[in-house]
Amino acid sequence: MSMRAAVMREGRFEVEPRPIPKPGPGNVLARVRACGICGSDLHYFHHAPEIIARAKGLGADTSAMERTLREGPVLGHEFVCEIVDFGPGATRALPAGTRVVSMPFVLRDGAPVLVGSSPETPGAYAEYMELTEALLLPAPDSVPDEAAALVEPFGIAVHAVNKAALRGDETCVVVGCGPIGLAVAGVLRARGFEAILAADLSPRRRELALALGATVAVDPRRDSVLALAADQAAGRPVVVFENTGAAGMLHRLVLEAPKDSRIVVTGIAAGDESLLPMVAITKELQLQFVIYYTAEEFAEALQLIAGGRVAWRAMLTGEVGLDGVTQAFADLSDPEQHAKILVRPWTD
Amino acid sequence: MSMRAAVMREGRFEVEPRPIPKPGPGNVLARVRACGICGSDLHYFHHAPEIIARAKGLGADTSAMERTLREGPVLGHEFVCEIVDFGPGATRALPAGTRVVSMPFVLRDGAPVLVGSSPETPGAYAEYMELTEALLLPAPDSVPDEAAALVEPFGIAVHAVNKAALRGDETCVVVGCGPIGLAVAGVLRARGFEAILAADLSPRRRELALALGATVAVDPRRDSVLALAADQAAGRPVVVFENTGAAGMLHRLVLEAPKDSRIVVTGIAAGDESLLPMVAITKELQLQFVIYYTAEEFAEALQLIAGGRVAWRAMLTGEVGLDGVTQAFADLSDPEQHAKILVRPWTD
Repeated sequence: MSMRAAVMREGRFEVEPRPIPKPGPGNVLARVRACGICGSDLHYFHHAPEIIARAKGLGADTSAMERTLREGPVLGHEFVCEIVDFGPGATRALPAGTRVVSMPFVLRDGAPVLVGSSPETPGAYAEYMELTEALLLPAPDSVPDEAAALVEPFGIAVHAVNKAALRGDETCVVVGCGPIGLAVAGVLRARGFEAILAADLSPRRRELALALGATVAVDPRRDSVLALAADQAAGRPVVVFENTGAAGMLHRLVLEAPKDSRIVVTGIAAGDESLLPMVAITKELQLQFVIYYTAEEFAEALQLIAGGRVAWRAMLTGEVGLDGVTQAFADLSDPEQHAKILVRPWTD
Repeated sequence: MSMRAAVMREGRFEVEPRPIPKPGPGNVLARVRACGICGSDLHYFHHAPEIIARAKGLGADTSAMERTLREGPVLGHEFVCEIVDFGPGATRALPAGTRVVSMPFVLRDGAPVLVGSSPETPGAYAEYMELTEALLLPAPDSVPDEAAALVEPFGIAVHAVNKAALRGDETCVVVGCGPIGLAVAGVLRARGFEAILAADLSPRRRELALALGATVAVDPRRDSVLALAADQAAGRPVVVFENTGAAGMLHRLVLEAPKDSRIVVTGIAAGDESLLPMVAITKELQLQFVIYYTAEEFAEALQLIAGGRVAWRAMLTGEVGLDGVTQAFADLSDPEQHAKILVRPWTD
């Protein structure tokens, strides 16, 4: 039995037949209803060989990464699915037909494997995928597919905000309004913060930031969002969410952040980044690097969306079928055009 | 009226006459009994022009720094004094003759000025200095001068440990066992931590670390203190105190620290430092840069010493008069010989 999958090839995605996964013990076969395209997928698409070389240089075992790249990765980790079949030992607590979301891991002998990271655990740019029953969360009827597919990036935002250990009176700065920055603005608004200052080069992204809950959105070529934050904070703490991963951004933030700022880093810079410890020390800055979320945070993201507490809809800017993935990846390079494009594997 | 002061000149200290300070409103004239030589004094002695040039490059107003360097700085901020006279408006809550310690700031129109940072606020490598009455803490009779002079570095250690926001079950790593690293080990021991792993290139410094409270002290050329910590921690959090300021150390710590480590940085690297955000993100590391302390933390350091809860004596390795400051600065470059040298301005 085979399914259609958008397989990553050199510079493009090809719709190719792939075997429908056979769910292992405790796992389910799931029909993919929708999947968001993540910035990390874009980064991998453009830089996979360098990413692998860098990991190898750091001493990592990259054999699985190399094999996956050779065989053609099936990416996609921001998905909503429907249960269609069960592997051995599954409890069937959620019946077939249930719409579900999940953290993007499949348990194999108890160990989590990131979906899309191996040929045996394809991601959601495909008609079907294997998921682990114990990680599934049912999507309430009130949550349409296009919202459920956003639980994953909102989970990252919930985690980033939690890692900032906020007490409630902080002035929040969101640097970079891609999907993660937008989700961070949304979560901060849902948590009741009244000063959420966003910065992005793109006018469209600044509009989206305001739609998601930012109170101000500035063009960093014209205004310093950190100077503005320092003014508004008037001595209270400033927390910066850095979501760009841009080269040189950490250095700039260390120079510009007010005293005692916390800087939560979600943006993944590709290479070495330099900063001035002497400046960071004088201002007692904190850098908190973050990735992923806990199971509780993922569930909280679903609840925020289900409860109508985040303006998720503004983030969605397009939809494609599997045939449209190559074009969608190209389109996402223009922040004026797009923020989040959904892949719907069963539409053309 | 003039006093003797060890004035910093190019490559040496000269004992020169300086005017005895006239205490301003709310301030006192204090006779210096002892003052520790700090690593930051050594750094300034060797690199003052570069430090000023770098500050200027970052946009700071360096005119006061330049004037101080021209006129000859009087350093020394780890002091114990005796009150000898009062400025206008002083309350005299502590009478003349009281032995006192103080955070190294003088208030001028309510604004703190770091002692030693201007010709008008000389530091404690001199017979007298001006201090602010409101900042004075009396040294109990049980605290000899040589212990009282260590309150300042222990205050930094209390602050660094507080900034780590420890919950009690952490495995603590002390990288670099100069006076701050030693004081951090002492404070961690006083707080009841049972895993305090120290690393220093110098055998003598490793001995001192054990004397102050480290449970293990390793030679980083032979053993990885972070690998050892990861083993001992067995999944519980690891907290690293980086006290070397060595070039490349942040990069190494990011590579070697286990997942979820907090890295508290007290060591002041001179220039740019690079690190790999991708690795820091994957491990969700936190970098907390620290300097100084609060008034409460400074007082807590005095209480730790007065209560016999830190083995401060091991840290003291020498004493000189003002004539001996040049030699002491030279001697401190050898970690096998010295950790902390006290200046006693009234002895020869």
